[in-house]
Amino acid sequence: MKRRDFLKRASATGAAAAATAAVASSFPTPAIAQDKRELKMVTTWPKNFPGLGTGAQRLADSITKMTDGRITVKLFAAGELVPPFESFDAVSSGTADMYHAADYYWQGKSKAYNFFTAVPYGFTATEIDAWINHGGGQELWDELGADFNIKHLPAGNTGVQMGGWFNKEINSLEDFKGLKIRMPGLGGEVLRQIGAAAVNLPGGEIFPSLQSGAIDATEWVGPWNDLAFGFYKVTKFYYWPGFHEPGSMLCCGINKSVWESFSESDQALIRGAALAENNYSLAEYNARNNDSLKTLINDHGVQLRQFSDEVMTAIGTASGEVVATAADEGGITKKVYDSYMAFRSGSIAWSKLSDQGYWNARSLPFKYGR
Amino acid sequence: MKRRDFLKRASATGAAAAATAAVASSFPTPAIAQDKRELKMVTTWPKNFPGLGTGAQRLADSITKMTDGRITVKLFAAGELVPPFESFDAVSSGTADMYHAADYYWQGKSKAYNFFTAVPYGFTATEIDAWINHGGGQELWDELGADFNIKHLPAGNTGVQMGGWFNKEINSLEDFKGLKIRMPGLGGEVLRQIGAAAVNLPGGEIFPSLQSGAIDATEWVGPWNDLAFGFYKVTKFYYWPGFHEPGSMLCCGINKSVWESFSESDQALIRGAALAENNYSLAEYNARNNDSLKTLINDHGVQLRQFSDEVMTAIGTASGEVVATAADEGGITKKVYDSYMAFRSGSIAWSKLSDQGYWNARSLPFKYGR
Repeated sequence: MKRRDFLKRASATGAAAAATAAVASSFPTPAIAQDKRELKMVTTWPKNFPGLGTGAQRLADSITKMTDGRITVKLFAAGELVPPFESFDAVSSGTADMYHAADYYWQGKSKAYNFFTAVPYGFTATEIDAWINHGGGQELWDELGADFNIKHLPAGNTGVQMGGWFNKEINSLEDFKGLKIRMPGLGGEVLRQIGAAAVNLPGGEIFPSLQSGAIDATEWVGPWNDLAFGFYKVTKFYYWPGFHEPGSMLCCGINKSVWESFSESDQALIRGAALAENNYSLAEYNARNNDSLKTLINDHGVQLRQFSDEVMTAIGTASGEVVATAADEGGITKKVYDSYMAFRSGSIAWSKLSDQGYWNARSLPFKYGR
Repeated sequence: MKRRDFLKRASATGAAAAATAAVASSFPTPAIAQDKRELKMVTTWPKNFPGLGTGAQRLADSITKMTDGRITVKLFAAGELVPPFESFDAVSSGTADMYHAADYYWQGKSKAYNFFTAVPYGFTATEIDAWINHGGGQELWDELGADFNIKHLPAGNTGVQMGGWFNKEINSLEDFKGLKIRMPGLGGEVLRQIGAAAVNLPGGEIFPSLQSGAIDATEWVGPWNDLAFGFYKVTKFYYWPGFHEPGSMLCCGINKSVWESFSESDQALIRGAALAENNYSLAEYNARNNDSLKTLINDHGVQLRQFSDEVMTAIGTASGEVVATAADEGGITKKVYDSYMAFRSGSIAWSKLSDQGYWNARSLPFKYGR
């Protein structure tokens, strides 16, 4: 999903820089007038980008509505107030009050941030929710965020992302050798370990690169977002399952001084709005992916292909190594890794009996209904 | 999970009846003093029953906290204000303002209510969330509730429930013939179709009945709730996957006149609190089930057993018939069934590629981490 470079294009505008300068002097103290507060939320997403930009807007609107405008959250899309990947620093310093983003964008600050969005062969959406809220994850996120003056809250999830679009069939591990595939981040590192030439490309360059043959394959998000990008016009092979982002949690990060200036009641309200969006957003991704998958197959002749067990096993081993290497950073990153790995082992045991076991049984050949 | 009779015992107390009579005259108008409102929430759960009673309490407390006490929600456990299974009528008539319950308890009002909790081989938690919020489910729930003067909101989920505890191994469909198993509701009807003697028993009678051999097997909820009931002391065979309740949604039902008396802002806040609880509750069930599963296996020698494909296929066919039969009620129930079935077909296609496909790949034999 990572669209760092895609967004960088939108962000490097003079207007954004000027806007940043213009407001910098009036912060970190939020505007207060007649008990009303106006908060600035920056994001890493283009305005109204489906699921991500619209989710950020929905969270901003929810807080505004739930407080009847007493706390008004004004959303700034990528580049409108600060460049998208300066959102973290802007909130940390108080230039903005809050951000909506995926926390793995901040892995340059600490690799621990990867674990609060998604890591290869890591948690699904329901598993990261369980870890964050009931497995010690939020406490570690708080500890990590404290170093940067930021309070983090769960605020959305894309669900499991697809394996990607390939211009040829992938029948064995051998087919990955030298394959030019667009996959950024830890997922890209994993593919390099199995011999692929993983590259990163700005979102806007993926389609033409796939069309010209400059790249052989690309991942993006899932049927909903991928349909909009039109990859089906260039290639028909759509692979599953994805391994690189099995449930990317989105985050609402809030300047810690701003957060602590709120009453316990307002903190509960903001946290409630974020958790509600966390629930609503995953539901939206799943529902829209359902619809879009049908469109891709029925209207555009897309052919689904499943990665072989050989491929997924090799990727699994490489994923474990890449994720463990991230923990070599030590300190809080090692603490987060240890907590994540311990919870993951319980999750695997429980999901086998519950969702996974149930879904596999539901896939047996039988007629359901009339 | 259904514990109708279990709860009936707790509810049929003189105290509850007296309490009901005492407050009946002061409703349906909610108490209003200095812009403050106090709302009465009734539930079908015993006080602090793990996951269910505690979830209801958490929702009541959230609304109170998020409004800084402007809307104070006072929780009445099963039988404290009205008998648990009169919660629906109490809210419908305005004797209480809201309830926290599982809506399939109201299938006597309309069989459509089954679809808003769980049906055999139906939606998981993430699937029902997608259907309710983005697949037309909430609109149908509103239409159904309007007939009873109730607004329904999602407010929790147990996740996939386990197949149950058996005093002998189940190796084939034949082993279900005459099997005395405690399973209420539509799940029980399914098991009767394959030859089992499904019965309902109050929660408090399950353990002694299993111990004495009066029943051969029972379902309850999952590792967390089942551990507390101590079934492992009587039998060691714990079967998966469950088919009868693959993700039971809990509901916050609100008297429609009370709901409409709220400003749009307060409606957004209450809905936000309910959706947040919907997210938090599923996460709690998954995390506690993870922990409790380890305890059952490591400390109590429980042996996990998987139902065979033969069994799950026969149960699947019977489930489809039982669920279709519920829709024979016609009217809104048929509308709900048609919507549910259409969305289910998309869910199956998408879950195969996403969560199910991913989890199966993650279960391949490879070393993850160091």
